[in-house]
Amino acid sequence: MAKLKTSIVIFGASGDLAQRKLIPALFTQFCKRRLPKDFEIVGFARTDWDHKAFRKTMHDALKTYSADVLTEKLWEKFEPHLHYIQGDLTVDKDFATLNSFLGELETEKGGNRLYYLSIAPRFFEVTVEALGKQDMARATPDSGWRRLVIEKPFGTDLASAQSLNKAVHNVFEEHQIYRIDHYLGKETAQNILFFRFANIMFEPVWNRNYIDHVQISVTESVDVGHRAGYYDDAGVLRDMFQNHLLQLLALTAMEPPASFEADAIRNEKVKTFMAVRPVTEETAFTDTVRAQYRTYRDAEGVAKESQTATYAALKLYVDNWRWQDVPFYLRSGKALKEKVSEIVIYFRSPPHIMFPIAEGEEIAPNVLHIRIQPDEGIHLRFEVKVPDTPANTRSVDMEFHYDDDFGEDALPDAYERLILDAINGDASLFTRSDGIEASWRIIDPIIEAWSSKKAPPLHYYEEDSWGPYAAEELLADDGRVWLIDGDEA
Amino acid sequence: MAKLKTSIVIFGASGDLAQRKLIPALFTQFCKRRLPKDFEIVGFARTDWDHKAFRKTMHDALKTYSADVLTEKLWEKFEPHLHYIQGDLTVDKDFATLNSFLGELETEKGGNRLYYLSIAPRFFEVTVEALGKQDMARATPDSGWRRLVIEKPFGTDLASAQSLNKAVHNVFEEHQIYRIDHYLGKETAQNILFFRFANIMFEPVWNRNYIDHVQISVTESVDVGHRAGYYDDAGVLRDMFQNHLLQLLALTAMEPPASFEADAIRNEKVKTFMAVRPVTEETAFTDTVRAQYRTYRDAEGVAKESQTATYAALKLYVDNWRWQDVPFYLRSGKALKEKVSEIVIYFRSPPHIMFPIAEGEEIAPNVLHIRIQPDEGIHLRFEVKVPDTPANTRSVDMEFHYDDDFGEDALPDAYERLILDAINGDASLFTRSDGIEASWRIIDPIIEAWSSKKAPPLHYYEEDSWGPYAAEELLADDGRVWLIDGDEA
Repeated sequence: MAKLKTSIVIFGASGDLAQRKLIPALFTQFCKRRLPKDFEIVGFARTDWDHKAFRKTMHDALKTYSADVLTEKLWEKFEPHLHYIQGDLTVDKDFATLNSFLGELETEKGGNRLYYLSIAPRFFEVTVEALGKQDMARATPDSGWRRLVIEKPFGTDLASAQSLNKAVHNVFEEHQIYRIDHYLGKETAQNILFFRFANIMFEPVWNRNYIDHVQISVTESVDVGHRAGYYDDAGVLRDMFQNHLLQLLALTAMEPPASFEADAIRNEKVKTFMAVRPVTEETAFTDTVRAQYRTYRDAEGVAKESQTATYAALKLYVDNWRWQDVPFYLRSGKALKEKVSEIVIYFRSPPHIMFPIAEGEEIAPNVLHIRIQPDEGIHLRFEVKVPDTPANTRSVDMEFHYDDDFGEDALPDAYERLILDAINGDASLFTRSDGIEASWRIIDPIIEAWSSKKAPPLHYYEEDSWGPYAAEELLADDGRVWLIDGDEA
Repeated sequence: MAKLKTSIVIFGASGDLAQRKLIPALFTQFCKRRLPKDFEIVGFARTDWDHKAFRKTMHDALKTYSADVLTEKLWEKFEPHLHYIQGDLTVDKDFATLNSFLGELETEKGGNRLYYLSIAPRFFEVTVEALGKQDMARATPDSGWRRLVIEKPFGTDLASAQSLNKAVHNVFEEHQIYRIDHYLGKETAQNILFFRFANIMFEPVWNRNYIDHVQISVTESVDVGHRAGYYDDAGVLRDMFQNHLLQLLALTAMEPPASFEADAIRNEKVKTFMAVRPVTEETAFTDTVRAQYRTYRDAEGVAKESQTATYAALKLYVDNWRWQDVPFYLRSGKALKEKVSEIVIYFRSPPHIMFPIAEGEEIAPNVLHIRIQPDEGIHLRFEVKVPDTPANTRSVDMEFHYDDDFGEDALPDAYERLILDAINGDASLFTRSDGIEASWRIIDPIIEAWSSKKAPPLHYYEEDSWGPYAAEELLADDGRVWLIDGDEA
């Protein structure tokens, strides 16, 4: 089996993602000698290209978007592995053409195939169906493996996700399916598990006895831009919460898996999702905030009266022994002041303050910042004595920055890792069908509450702000504030 | 009472400590406006000085040793508070002279008096006795307080410490007595309590369930120098362990005191000392290392065949629920490679490693460094994922340096704090009689074992090394190594 050729088929090869992420990621892994020895990359799209045009376009794309990784000498060696089949996702015979082209590339024994769906979600089902019809999904003992990588979004609600899962399962078995959430490919997201479980110090305090609350912020500075049409249908809950924010919540809140095996990790994630207390029509008023930036409706493709939220803040609870009564505050939005992804673990105050402090004063609780971007790293705020005072305390930071220890270019693009994992058959960083469905079970009731007649009000916020005042109130009502890297924001 | 004058009497005012530490500390606190409004400083010594000569000598001393704190303009205001009484510690009438001089300085109502014994230990008893004879120790409700500050060493073993305590208690009550260990005046030593008890994160893992062992190193780069005569009698156990190292052990190992009151803290320290398992003649062989640097016997004042240890390494156990079976490795010595004081908390490995690591490999345990000097600060070694690998981990440091947050000159000299505490009646950082005796109860059996006929061998080490090989073996036998700031040393 080790000698079989591996073919990576990119559906939607003329698209943005292929040019900006997939081909650069594959080329980089090629340069690092991590691709299988015998591999081919086959682009499939409607654009009228031949092999040569595809190669030239991809080369130009690397020049434009990823100049730092492009080495001409290695590109010359990489280029012959690139092929192109013009075809339409809705035309069966184009799949037959693709299939026979792949057959030609492969040895008599067969070959491994990774099908990468870098296409609009409305084509997911038809593409999978076509692969089934051509018998391109079934691996025989000799023919090598068949795997399917599906880009997000995976469904738009629980029903559509279930339906998509069903359609995909008609053709592929679950272990063949790799659902992408590129957030999970980021080093610092992966590092949450290492931080928690490769160190003995943190796990003992990682629970309701010591943690007051958790904040997860994924803020974006860009507005909806050219994605306005898609976005106006989706909104921030589908675009960011169902996938990225809930994944970060799961990594933060999950129980320790027994092993690093994909299913061990994914079992724990699903358990965590299942424990999230569903938002109801009533708690939608107290525990959720929806908002839109003021100029959103001016964007082309956005409905004039659009009620779509470009910002959301949620207060969620994880109803289990570890987290009972510990609020998880999640927020995300577009057109905000800064692009930041950060998890804040806000500890409780020490149970007893032995030090003489003025009445009404408090010793600041410990705060752990897991910064995902930018400037990936970990900061711990703790208290020390102020020198030359009898017993005054002050907060100081212990800091670790990835850049300092591993160099500025150490963090690879998320796609490098994910595409290699898919090739290597490691599904840890991909979402399982029950995980997808469980996450929609959290999001659906909120979407429902927000679109009902008794929906909580839609707030508005200025571009380049930190979001609506109502989101501040959500925490202020609990006597808390949003923190970004230690500063109130 | 608040209006009473406060007199600080320095016995041994012509000595080194007064010139290098006490007068600079008092002057600095004067500049910071922390001394009582109405104060006088009275030097007492045999040297033939008058007020003027004393003032000039102290001024010169500041110029020489503490130029950075000397401001002439403030000195002019400080100087008139300096007085000098020539006298002999063994001559009662000189104390009478001193007493009447103090009476002249004080108001009719009386005054507060701090007697600072900056004198050779052999004069402690006679001085205290003389103070008693002149009725200078007893505070009447109106006359203001009387306090006694005693420099180390306090006794040379349990018997002499008990005898000295008894002699002092004949004249002063325990609450009047301030026994100095200047290590406790260091900010970072004080900060151990803040680090442990003003933060919620550390106390839950501060026990045998999570800590593998503790290292306390106080290394000195200087040799015995001009103190050779004293040192050859004392040795490193009396010079460093009975006081500094055991105090650091107590701060590290003690249970949380209920308050910052002196007795609350000192009760916990004594409890800790009482729980230290005594070294026996047998365990002296396995758990202690004594050594001498090679050129020690060449020093003037050292006996030709001297068996005095200039270096010691001990393995101690604290027999209580928190620390059972956790070794505390203590080491200290002269003529070593660097001057470093550091406490290392070496954690256990995580109970279960979920990550795929090669057989025989281990994930490095967390290590917390509390650096007392130089470069005071706290470092935490923890594990992160190596970027661009599936699951490799590497140790990195989160660091906090006092200098970074509080500036380079933020840390005051230990004497500034201690002398002010004594004036203000805060005994937290001073040693109580039962604490002194309890620490001797730990040291005495080791001294005894080392001077018996069946003593463990005296090792030798090179100057400018990290000590004898036997000290490495002490840890190596347990599968451990000495750490200095994260490096093996």
